[in-house]
Amino acid sequence: MLKAAMQYCYATRMETTPRSFIREILKVTEKPEMISFAGGLPNPDLFPVEELAEIARDVIGGEGKKALQYSTTEGHPPLREWIAARYKKYYHMDVSPEDILITNGSQQSLDLVGKVFINQGSPVAIERPGYLGAIQAFSLYEPRFHAVPLGAAGPDIPTLTGIMKKQRPVFFYGIPNSQNPSGVTWSQESRREVAEIAADTQTILVEDDAYGEIRFNGVHLPPLRSFLPDQVVMTGSFSKIIAPGLRMGWICAPREIREQFVTVKQGTDLHSNILSQHIIARFLSEFPVDVHIRRITETYHRQCSCMIQAIQDSFPKCVACNRPDGGMFLWAEMPEGCSSMKLFERAVARDVAILPGVPFYTDGGGLNSMRLNFSNQPEDRIREGIRRLGEELHLYLEDPDHGG
Amino acid sequence: MLKAAMQYCYATRMETTPRSFIREILKVTEKPEMISFAGGLPNPDLFPVEELAEIARDVIGGEGKKALQYSTTEGHPPLREWIAARYKKYYHMDVSPEDILITNGSQQSLDLVGKVFINQGSPVAIERPGYLGAIQAFSLYEPRFHAVPLGAAGPDIPTLTGIMKKQRPVFFYGIPNSQNPSGVTWSQESRREVAEIAADTQTILVEDDAYGEIRFNGVHLPPLRSFLPDQVVMTGSFSKIIAPGLRMGWICAPREIREQFVTVKQGTDLHSNILSQHIIARFLSEFPVDVHIRRITETYHRQCSCMIQAIQDSFPKCVACNRPDGGMFLWAEMPEGCSSMKLFERAVARDVAILPGVPFYTDGGGLNSMRLNFSNQPEDRIREGIRRLGEELHLYLEDPDHGG
Repeated sequence: MLKAAMQYCYATRMETTPRSFIREILKVTEKPEMISFAGGLPNPDLFPVEELAEIARDVIGGEGKKALQYSTTEGHPPLREWIAARYKKYYHMDVSPEDILITNGSQQSLDLVGKVFINQGSPVAIERPGYLGAIQAFSLYEPRFHAVPLGAAGPDIPTLTGIMKKQRPVFFYGIPNSQNPSGVTWSQESRREVAEIAADTQTILVEDDAYGEIRFNGVHLPPLRSFLPDQVVMTGSFSKIIAPGLRMGWICAPREIREQFVTVKQGTDLHSNILSQHIIARFLSEFPVDVHIRRITETYHRQCSCMIQAIQDSFPKCVACNRPDGGMFLWAEMPEGCSSMKLFERAVARDVAILPGVPFYTDGGGLNSMRLNFSNQPEDRIREGIRRLGEELHLYLEDPDHGG
Repeated sequence: MLKAAMQYCYATRMETTPRSFIREILKVTEKPEMISFAGGLPNPDLFPVEELAEIARDVIGGEGKKALQYSTTEGHPPLREWIAARYKKYYHMDVSPEDILITNGSQQSLDLVGKVFINQGSPVAIERPGYLGAIQAFSLYEPRFHAVPLGAAGPDIPTLTGIMKKQRPVFFYGIPNSQNPSGVTWSQESRREVAEIAADTQTILVEDDAYGEIRFNGVHLPPLRSFLPDQVVMTGSFSKIIAPGLRMGWICAPREIREQFVTVKQGTDLHSNILSQHIIARFLSEFPVDVHIRRITETYHRQCSCMIQAIQDSFPKCVACNRPDGGMFLWAEMPEGCSSMKLFERAVARDVAILPGVPFYTDGGGLNSMRLNFSNQPEDRIREGIRRLGEELHLYLEDPDHGG
């Protein structure tokens, strides 16, 4: 008799978790001739390669027995001190090093947020469009999402108020600075209003600040945490200011919540790579970080301006694009009824990749929208890619049912 | 009016997750004069510090733009190739590099296992005593544990059979080689029997092989996976053979299950630190790894033999200790009715730390047992610590209610 084929049984969360759309898309875009605006990679020319190479050798050679051994869950104290001091200097927030937990990048911070707060069926409020990585991280804990439309100056306040009062979400997650995917930065007024509703309804805010340092226009606006320190879980990342491959970020949270994070972090992976924590701490203390970050923001500013100019030169006027003040993305919307998946297919045939907006919507919609990344292509390729995309947009909008 | 204090609300899993007992204990043991057998640290004198320092500089200097950039969830291909080849060479298993997913050490592998398989209330079978890190990782997914007594040659087969047939656990988790905490290695016969019951009942086996390479007596026994490749999720780690601070391990799983792991790993932290993956892969390809591992096993063998000799010289005869063939721990049991927590308190007053056995039991019990780590103390301190512990044991067993 033949042995019956093994039937695998998984937890119910595996049914509701979206397969990574980006991952499938990015596979298409791996050809070297592809001009990809689809991914979300920082510009690797700006990684401090030589500095990190020397530091890595010195750290391992000099402190290897400590920097390679098991370590504490909370993280390397000098690194936590730097983060607290940075918050003080730039955001005028009173943060203690003890408030910081080192994580494996923002993505793990979001996973830990889900683990600490979300039961199966818990209501979670999120921007619309919302960050795909957060949607994926939270989905593994099976929440019910409530989407808050994101406008040019921040979340829609009446909708947010209604959700907070009626649905009682376990938290509202957002990216006030240079949001991924939209590039939107919430205004000061919007931040104040969101904090007020959260205070009224005792709702936790999860403030993802992965792009706060990558601001090339305007001043630093006050974080939500500065209005409401005992209700905000703030996350940060070294991915955009040093390098993403090290997977290093952090959570800044009120003491009581932080203890919960430490408990789950320990059950999840004991602690983050301590060698990389030593390397980053040494880089931050020995090199002029502000000069380094200014080099990044100036470069991204140029890349962003180049993309905006190219869009003005070649996109149909009915395609709306925004003008981000920072970050790595801008957002474009075709007229209602158009499909950015169809545009994606046509663009890929011309060796240009965009990211269709659909996966950023937890409640459907976004069919006509797309995210464009400007940080990972040199300016000549940005111009050429946008030129080809403009041609395809003209052809598609003239005859949406043809080709592709 | 005073503002009402914020009431924090967490997911139900936070209520059932044990606060880390080890963590609290280890805080007591941090004084430099403390001779600690409580932790589970590898011997840092055996970290390949000089080699890793040079490799780290070369990798960042030579391939920094790749080794510091975002990377694939599955992991660095040369590292996955090395692991597959190693399985072939030592365990004669036919494993493809595609079967391997790189993780942040065994602890993350266990977290991902919980995420993929456990619903709230799912039955999970685990050894008794069982690995505390696994109990913590799985607890965050709120299973019901079913404990399978672990004897000197492996799990109790009648109990395991009953649990697999009646409770239908989503998996049975165990450490067949040099188990943590007990130091027990399952016999070949025991492995065969466990695989047979699992095949009969279509139960997934989670085979944690963190210590397989650290074997100083006897031959390599066949992994569970070699009997039942399509039902075994096997986990491995570089923590014991290279260094734990890098947080690098892996999962080897059947293709269909592996795809689930990749999906959850991506939502959890995108991918593991790619710089460390490059560094480890380079170390494994450029240096004689077998010589390095032999140095570790010979050292641990000496440390283990030293501890066993010291125990024979000074422990009361009614305290039963085992004689591990590998790993970093041995297991001791006082007569029924004794409390290893009381012994812990007395020992700490003499600057010696042990790990009481209680947290390794998911169903109570283990009150009279303790884990002793031999890998992280030099031999003279092992002798001195065991001598003091023997004195305290004699005093305690003569008059259990006195002192402490």
